[in-house]
Amino acid sequence: MDLKVGIIGAGPSGLAMLRAFESEEKKGNKIPQVKCFEKQDNWGGMWNYTWRTGVGKYGEPLHGSMYKYLWSNGPKECLEFADYTFLEHFGQPISSYPPREVLFDYIQGRIKQSNARKYIQFNTVARWVDYNNDTKQFRVVFDDLVKNETFEENFDYLVVGTGHFSTPNLPYFKGIENFPGAVMHAHDFRGADQFINQDILLIGSSYSAEDIAVQCYKHGAKSVTISYRTNPINCKWPDGIKEVPLVTHFEDSKAYLKDGSHKAYDAVIFCTGYQHKFPFLPDSLRLKTRNCLYPDSLYKGVVFNELPQLIYLGMQDQYYTFNMFDTQAWFARDYMLGKITLPAKEDRDADIKNWMEEEAKSVTSCEHVDFQTAYLRDLIDRTDYPDFNLDKVADMFKSWLKDKEENILTYRDKVYTSVIDDTNAVKHHTKWMNELNDSLERYLEEDPIDEKALSKTNYY
Amino acid sequence: MDLKVGIIGAGPSGLAMLRAFESEEKKGNKIPQVKCFEKQDNWGGMWNYTWRTGVGKYGEPLHGSMYKYLWSNGPKECLEFADYTFLEHFGQPISSYPPREVLFDYIQGRIKQSNARKYIQFNTVARWVDYNNDTKQFRVVFDDLVKNETFEENFDYLVVGTGHFSTPNLPYFKGIENFPGAVMHAHDFRGADQFINQDILLIGSSYSAEDIAVQCYKHGAKSVTISYRTNPINCKWPDGIKEVPLVTHFEDSKAYLKDGSHKAYDAVIFCTGYQHKFPFLPDSLRLKTRNCLYPDSLYKGVVFNELPQLIYLGMQDQYYTFNMFDTQAWFARDYMLGKITLPAKEDRDADIKNWMEEEAKSVTSCEHVDFQTAYLRDLIDRTDYPDFNLDKVADMFKSWLKDKEENILTYRDKVYTSVIDDTNAVKHHTKWMNELNDSLERYLEEDPIDEKALSKTNYY
Repeated sequence: MDLKVGIIGAGPSGLAMLRAFESEEKKGNKIPQVKCFEKQDNWGGMWNYTWRTGVGKYGEPLHGSMYKYLWSNGPKECLEFADYTFLEHFGQPISSYPPREVLFDYIQGRIKQSNARKYIQFNTVARWVDYNNDTKQFRVVFDDLVKNETFEENFDYLVVGTGHFSTPNLPYFKGIENFPGAVMHAHDFRGADQFINQDILLIGSSYSAEDIAVQCYKHGAKSVTISYRTNPINCKWPDGIKEVPLVTHFEDSKAYLKDGSHKAYDAVIFCTGYQHKFPFLPDSLRLKTRNCLYPDSLYKGVVFNELPQLIYLGMQDQYYTFNMFDTQAWFARDYMLGKITLPAKEDRDADIKNWMEEEAKSVTSCEHVDFQTAYLRDLIDRTDYPDFNLDKVADMFKSWLKDKEENILTYRDKVYTSVIDDTNAVKHHTKWMNELNDSLERYLEEDPIDEKALSKTNYY
Repeated sequence: MDLKVGIIGAGPSGLAMLRAFESEEKKGNKIPQVKCFEKQDNWGGMWNYTWRTGVGKYGEPLHGSMYKYLWSNGPKECLEFADYTFLEHFGQPISSYPPREVLFDYIQGRIKQSNARKYIQFNTVARWVDYNNDTKQFRVVFDDLVKNETFEENFDYLVVGTGHFSTPNLPYFKGIENFPGAVMHAHDFRGADQFINQDILLIGSSYSAEDIAVQCYKHGAKSVTISYRTNPINCKWPDGIKEVPLVTHFEDSKAYLKDGSHKAYDAVIFCTGYQHKFPFLPDSLRLKTRNCLYPDSLYKGVVFNELPQLIYLGMQDQYYTFNMFDTQAWFARDYMLGKITLPAKEDRDADIKNWMEEEAKSVTSCEHVDFQTAYLRDLIDRTDYPDFNLDKVADMFKSWLKDKEENILTYRDKVYTSVIDDTNAVKHHTKWMNELNDSLERYLEEDPIDEKALSKTNYY
């Protein structure tokens, strides 16, 4: 009987899985019966922007964490698909740090060339999974949100590509319940405009805090204060952004620090990260991990070791993104097709343990880049995913880290060179700090006016 | 074998169910094995206030829709338990419109006298229900959110008391995605403070719109505009609140009406209601209804007619609240205990149809009150729930409707008389429009200063 593969989620990971199968089919090889289920009304996962917050149209926890004016926070050359370049998509070189809509367009460009859409059922959420020990299949109950109807499907392999930047982690601080202004998690931040002329407090010190701070500064917040738990972000902030140690508690609109100092704020944004959350899975099949580069219990970062018919994509913390999902999907495909045979469980355990020990040894951001580069190398060597110069990409990541440290306001004006087709990125027509319009249309304009550069205000 | 009853939700409905069983047990009668599961960390459902929005601590869709400065919007004499009065709880007469914390205290007072808490497992969400046709039992998969562990239980009867004011209904308006200010559903509104000196647009014309409008006005919004779809709310608004027809679309911060007029706003709050949502049930067991006084497919508004082992509490639109949940719970209890025998399915269908036809005939708010009064009468007559003067309560509802129409800012200063113990409510020490502190402590103070009344500002 034909194998049946179920894919949950049509974001970058799920689409990579579909693309991997398509690539095999185009070679004239037989592929399993594949079905993909997506709770949103379009593909793209996180890149499918919505104005909504909290829950979606049908009351499901909202997937998207992106906001207006979100630009790539890493060079696009570090995430380029090896089989579909930015040049191929746009027909011309573009800058290294495009806005969300441009990246979404790129992701869609590749998948639109295939018939992937016919495999995807939209507005459909996975409700519950049982694994049947007799049939060795997963029974998955889905919920068609439009029809308000549930139905079941059985699969030999189940691929979970539901992401892990959707479920907010929101710690409690004493007194926050009486804070009079807006209180939100970064997940619900939809743009800096509502914070113009306000004093904003961000809690956290990872990418969300860094980027929301700069966005609010750029779009006119009166002041931005970042409160970190362990270490500050460590870049040279402009006047108007500063870092302070962790808040101890709130009294009305005032946030207090350990040293007794305090300041009143108009709004608090929790940039306190996300939870890995799989409500549709019994806990024996759930990946239980913090956000790290090599989660325990996933062989090659992909195969759930306790039940290898269960596959997780993209569950790592991410320097590499789209290209990492590709290398994982290609590996998962060849494993499901029987081209890759898994070693015995003990050997897989040992392999996972090795990688986890290596991760534990890496401390600096550069070492983390090297670690994830080695992980991609390990995967690419096992499939026919087009090879590319991983060392050069690692170098680009390290330059990017340095660029950010040197100037958090200008790093997005730098340009890099594709390792796939050697295209040099071009400088964007407008300096990033002057560019207040993040639309695809504006981005691709040939000779627009840099209004800010003409005015008195110049941030450089 | 002992019957097993599972209750999902420990809000007012679930607690009423526990109380109903307790009352039977105190009479010396045997009760089934009862277990209750609550996804929040405390009982009280909607009345268990949280500062969080979107999803809860463990990433579940957030239950609570209440906000700071929420005061009862109906006389407490219309919701009083027939077996536990406000006088018994507070030991003194109080006003007719207490704030949330005071009502929460009252709800807890009754249930704390019992051992109900030991039947409740908190932080535990129902994930999935299968009905087993062979064993005639429900298999329910629960998720212990603290332990991140799933487990199964089987029940002969399943009582769903998960409420229907938790899942926002959020329609799309063209251009809303580019609105620069705060955009939220009433579900995520946590208080008026963040809207001080702002121009606020509310969309909707039911209780949320009415109350949030008045709250924002009271706490200092610059202006409040209410946009209604079909009919305006119909009360005399003060300067600073006005009603307009439905918005057609947005352009940046401007909302346009059908006649081409437009105005810019700082924030938009969608008061567009809630969905009945039961993600843990297969669709064959789901109550599918809009918010109405007699949902189809529930015999006596309680028993799911297609599978009478499934019971829903509190799924109606509500004039009566706590006392209605009680009458439903007492009925459900006696049915599960075999004291009430259901008629044949066709007869139940006919009964439901009758009630629905009656509802269809009722048009005005007063007629709706009469309809729900008749519904409670129908239930009370069938159990030993303490009888009370329903006609008088209906009269109070009608006075309340009139009070609101006459003056939306002062109706909460009126007082009513308990039909349970004839206690006359006392006037609150401070006029509602002057009372900016909604704490239980302040509410029960004996001789506090009405600061607003002393100042020049007087709203009356």
